[in-house]
Amino acid sequence: MQGADISYHNFLSSEDNPSVKLFRKLMTSKKIRRQYGLFALEGLRLVMDAFESGYDGVEKLYLTETAYEKYHEKFEDFSTELTVITDALGRKISETENTQGVFAMCRVLNNPSVSSLKKNGRYIVLHKLQDTGNAGMIIRTAAALGLDGVIFSGSCDVFNPKTVRSSMGALFRIPVYRDIDEQMLFDKLSELGLNSYAAVVDKDACDVADMDFNSGGAVFVGNEGNGLDKEVTDLCSERLTIRMSGSTESLNAAMAAGIIMWELMKCD
Amino acid sequence: MQGADISYHNFLSSEDNPSVKLFRKLMTSKKIRRQYGLFALEGLRLVMDAFESGYDGVEKLYLTETAYEKYHEKFEDFSTELTVITDALGRKISETENTQGVFAMCRVLNNPSVSSLKKNGRYIVLHKLQDTGNAGMIIRTAAALGLDGVIFSGSCDVFNPKTVRSSMGALFRIPVYRDIDEQMLFDKLSELGLNSYAAVVDKDACDVADMDFNSGGAVFVGNEGNGLDKEVTDLCSERLTIRMSGSTESLNAAMAAGIIMWELMKCD
Repeated sequence: MQGADISYHNFLSSEDNPSVKLFRKLMTSKKIRRQYGLFALEGLRLVMDAFESGYDGVEKLYLTETAYEKYHEKFEDFSTELTVITDALGRKISETENTQGVFAMCRVLNNPSVSSLKKNGRYIVLHKLQDTGNAGMIIRTAAALGLDGVIFSGSCDVFNPKTVRSSMGALFRIPVYRDIDEQMLFDKLSELGLNSYAAVVDKDACDVADMDFNSGGAVFVGNEGNGLDKEVTDLCSERLTIRMSGSTESLNAAMAAGIIMWELMKCD
Repeated sequence: MQGADISYHNFLSSEDNPSVKLFRKLMTSKKIRRQYGLFALEGLRLVMDAFESGYDGVEKLYLTETAYEKYHEKFEDFSTELTVITDALGRKISETENTQGVFAMCRVLNNPSVSSLKKNGRYIVLHKLQDTGNAGMIIRTAAALGLDGVIFSGSCDVFNPKTVRSSMGALFRIPVYRDIDEQMLFDKLSELGLNSYAAVVDKDACDVADMDFNSGGAVFVGNEGNGLDKEVTDLCSERLTIRMSGSTESLNAAMAAGIIMWELMKCD
């Protein structure tokens, strides 16, 4: 790398730098993410997705020296503060074994209010879902299938690096409602005349393949181990299930949600 | 733990023990798994699944001292060689951060021949799929939805610990065909009059929701990054796709396979 190339940028090599220390904490601590209203992105594709989605919250971009040489032209059209860091520092702050050396510090996305939920809308509600990889995969699938939003209620943190990564940037492209109070949600669904569906493992519940979702609705899926809380299930207008083969079989929570979303998006 | 409890069993504390060394290698090396025809299981649920499925290939069971105290009664009905190991050794051979201390060394499952494929059967074929977690999730989903088999052709190793773990023991409950030559497979499908479907990302391909799978069929899904090889796609009798919202969206390979399997299992 020629020195001139980076003369307009900051250059960092120390992990004691306050900005680097904050970045690292944003990767590991939900509390710090909440406190600062920031989160961390890693990976070329994800950071590009953030810029290209029109989201304007990328506050700082960090490229390792190697990544700067390879990728800096990709970022020329986007105005943000660029800091070049040593490859060694990139390896230290990375969440992955073979880092691409592309990192961004971002403002958390606006949290849409339940008042923006739409009549005839189609939503998936994650209630006490804990696995960050599952949550990200559900956001990705919801965006791909064209749902109107993903609603987090008592679930894991949307801005956990693993959620962000497994969402493949879809959280920039679909409304993700966070920290939503169930009661307010049920009140709004009722006001909109939107059906609420409890996804349960119960052979007596209605087969999701037989449901009529033509007026939209919100499907509630629960915790990986314990399923959906009884209180939430009771508040839902209907119960649905995925028919399974044999009594010992089960589906991964993200897979179950994916199949349900697929059916939810079908119109007659 | 009382000494008497384990007096009938082997007891190991050294990681230099040949059996422990072999177990460890089975976890990390496909070559060693092939050479010995063995694979490694970890976790109470998985090992119990192996026993309860009727599979008789558990050659050795290892319990840490703590796991022995907690779980040994669960294994009393199953005849297999039990070795108690120290908790420290358990942590060393474990693939996970918080091990349950339950391990088994198993003979690889019989590899069904393509001649056992059935008329009107419903199969998913994984062609050059590389991600072990995806492969396991597909096996789990296929078993839950009731497919007749999962066919690995040029894909990752079925007995990789991550595949086994994310299959949640389903590989003991559904036929998994391994190292299947494509040409032999296509010949057999043709002989059975079974349709072959190439799953592709192409808006001109037939929407999977509109397909008629009443006579069964085999759906081919490809590599995570590159999709299905053109040669294989061309050999298939039909092409199908999952309609997505927007041009930048994509589905995780296991999720796409799950939605396709869900449609494959529907009958009019």
